[in-house]
Amino acid sequence: MSDTFVVVGGDAAGMSAASKAKRENPELDVVVFEKGEWVSYAACGMPYYVKGEVEDLEDLVAVTPEEFREERDIDLRTGHEVVGVDPGAGTVTVEGEGETFEQPYDHLLVATGATAVEPPFDGLDLDGVFTIHDMDEAGAIEDYVTERSPDTAAVVGGGYVGIEMAEALSARGADVHLYEMLPHVLQPFGDAVAEVVEEHLRAQGVHLHLDTAVSGFDGEGSVERVGFEGESRPADIAVVGVGVAPNTQLAADAGIELGETGAIATDEYGRTNYGNVYAAGDCAEARNVVTGEPDHVPLALTANRAGRAIGQTVAGDPEPVGGTAGTAIVKAFDLGAARTGVVDEQRAREAGFDPVSVSISAPTRAHYYPGGAELTVTLVADGESGRLLGGTVVGREGTKRVDTVATALAAGMTVSELQKADLAYAPPFSPVRDPILTAANVLEGKLDGE
Amino acid sequence: MSDTFVVVGGDAAGMSAASKAKRENPELDVVVFEKGEWVSYAACGMPYYVKGEVEDLEDLVAVTPEEFREERDIDLRTGHEVVGVDPGAGTVTVEGEGETFEQPYDHLLVATGATAVEPPFDGLDLDGVFTIHDMDEAGAIEDYVTERSPDTAAVVGGGYVGIEMAEALSARGADVHLYEMLPHVLQPFGDAVAEVVEEHLRAQGVHLHLDTAVSGFDGEGSVERVGFEGESRPADIAVVGVGVAPNTQLAADAGIELGETGAIATDEYGRTNYGNVYAAGDCAEARNVVTGEPDHVPLALTANRAGRAIGQTVAGDPEPVGGTAGTAIVKAFDLGAARTGVVDEQRAREAGFDPVSVSISAPTRAHYYPGGAELTVTLVADGESGRLLGGTVVGREGTKRVDTVATALAAGMTVSELQKADLAYAPPFSPVRDPILTAANVLEGKLDGE
Repeated sequence: MSDTFVVVGGDAAGMSAASKAKRENPELDVVVFEKGEWVSYAACGMPYYVKGEVEDLEDLVAVTPEEFREERDIDLRTGHEVVGVDPGAGTVTVEGEGETFEQPYDHLLVATGATAVEPPFDGLDLDGVFTIHDMDEAGAIEDYVTERSPDTAAVVGGGYVGIEMAEALSARGADVHLYEMLPHVLQPFGDAVAEVVEEHLRAQGVHLHLDTAVSGFDGEGSVERVGFEGESRPADIAVVGVGVAPNTQLAADAGIELGETGAIATDEYGRTNYGNVYAAGDCAEARNVVTGEPDHVPLALTANRAGRAIGQTVAGDPEPVGGTAGTAIVKAFDLGAARTGVVDEQRAREAGFDPVSVSISAPTRAHYYPGGAELTVTLVADGESGRLLGGTVVGREGTKRVDTVATALAAGMTVSELQKADLAYAPPFSPVRDPILTAANVLEGKLDGE
Repeated sequence: MSDTFVVVGGDAAGMSAASKAKRENPELDVVVFEKGEWVSYAACGMPYYVKGEVEDLEDLVAVTPEEFREERDIDLRTGHEVVGVDPGAGTVTVEGEGETFEQPYDHLLVATGATAVEPPFDGLDLDGVFTIHDMDEAGAIEDYVTERSPDTAAVVGGGYVGIEMAEALSARGADVHLYEMLPHVLQPFGDAVAEVVEEHLRAQGVHLHLDTAVSGFDGEGSVERVGFEGESRPADIAVVGVGVAPNTQLAADAGIELGETGAIATDEYGRTNYGNVYAAGDCAEARNVVTGEPDHVPLALTANRAGRAIGQTVAGDPEPVGGTAGTAIVKAFDLGAARTGVVDEQRAREAGFDPVSVSISAPTRAHYYPGGAELTVTLVADGESGRLLGGTVVGREGTKRVDTVATALAAGMTVSELQKADLAYAPPFSPVRDPILTAANVLEGKLDGE
């Protein structure tokens, strides 16, 4: 009899694992339980659906349930929730279609994702107050905007979801107020990025309320006002995006160990403390390539890649899940902002480094070539070894250049090594010395004590 | 008495070396002889001047002669040609302002550049036949186009200069015929790039004549026809761009050794066979980072970087000039095309590798996000070690992604290592898996014999 691979959760990590396992070992029985109706969808695309740039929610689905079932021969059961795991017996308890049943497994993947954090705000249950945590919620926001045409919008949280929603609601005609508890937006991107993004958001008409704690919402049935620091302002719609927390209840109840970050602890193959139980995606930890330590990075590529590796391992050909540099990029109106690695100096010190950093601004094209934009690049390195630790890029074009830094991190390069990379130049694409190289040169000078 | 650093040639390599040496060691006497009037200019910008996107030729100058003299304290003598070097005596013979004199040096840099190759064509001296080899020639082309408004143009050579000039002359209203002796344009970029570029050039109305050897030009005083393979066609202007050859006469006459490529042989510090005589830029060899062998790569960044390193060495703080991956990028109308490393399989075999390659096409953005383009990525690796050898990228946007490959080459990464790089994803910037990662995945599968 062939082995059974059970997957809990049908998004990036789960469906990547299921597809890869079945492709590598067609003998395997692969069963996926997804409690909702959506699988393999691009959560990152939801703000663009609200904005109106993506016409149908269905467009965000990469592979449909039918394709998984018919073309990939995966036993995908949507509308089925796994409510218990018994690692001793090797079974999961499933509720769906009005019944509860036990499903045995030989290998299990927990890919339960993460949920938008709901802060202890008043009035979270008012109509028109949303967190953007799944496809149905994205649909509900779009419907609300279409029905009510809100004049003012409150976006709570200046992370990437908040910034993308500010852009989306602004495009839909709302006067947007963005509230952030910390002194700057995009905290994981560092101050050099935040300052450029904040200036741009203001120029686009977004009202920024930094260092401002929201207390809740008020209204008759539907939201009318947002309260903060003893004041309040009108808000015809509110979107709360203050971060996500890993969905670990199912795992914790089953005795699967959590790590220090609060997500599920995993080894280099994505295994939990039970050898045949894996975890991947937004519910699990991943190894940070810079610090070597466990990290919680709820991002799509990490999920996708870990799922794929686990699928291969389960199919009989063990493959490490690889690390994460926490690389992220976000569009804020006409700007791009990107980060990779360890950018925060405090965090670098905690990981045992002696961080040295520089920020430079340089043009994206030759100075005489039309168009182009100013790019602000920050690089951080270890003063002792010269090893590159991380970097950020912000500007109106060319922010994918952060990939050069991410590649250097994957290779463990020093600043001096990066400085010698032969990056592409022609007037329409770059100055002779790419802005990343200019930043590396300046940082190398600082490391040398020049 | 302080040392004297003499530089022959006032463009990228020469002026970078002069500036760096003087900045690092202000005691040094730095003398630069440039036979023309232009220094520190962007030759790569000349097609955009002809096209009309750059208003003044002067806009292509990064630093003016006055700035070098007054702000950087460099004794820059334009209109002065070095006609001889006596390494034994440590002097150069200079002609300028009607006199000939000897200039002693303690350190000498030969940065004499390269010259456009003049093929043995008939009618090269007709009015309206140009090679694009210096700023005055770019000025002359622009003048000719403005005066004559040519209906038809012949561009000879399908390298990047030929393609950029085809775009420029087309923008100026000419019906452009491009002649290439080889079966494809952009030979160093490989067939996968060439085919995409050729299709685009044809779609833009450029008439391609591949596998076609031009024999020369004909006309009464000014060019009227271009001859090829026994036929001829009208041509109101002709631009010949069939490659450049290093200017080595001065060096060779002085007993400075040339390498196998025909350019001046140098060591890792840019030194020639005379310990105090350096060579850099388009006249000199550089070490290829992939093969480890001497290479002749007449590109701006290589020149700029070697000059800077030599300036530092001369100032007393020895710095290797670094290698080159031959990274290049070119705009062809609405397309970008880029290459890095060893792309040609024949050349890879000659360097002792067992080349394995793949080409893939993937979108530059999430499938549901508006805009975006298809990117064709080719990667080449060594079948034995899995080490990445080179790559190309072509498409309507995102071709700077070649920098990811160039960075991996600088680090000596394997395909499997590149595959794990955490590249940036958000719907407006990339699919979840960047096209470079998709290519690496497919190549890794091929290397594994999947």
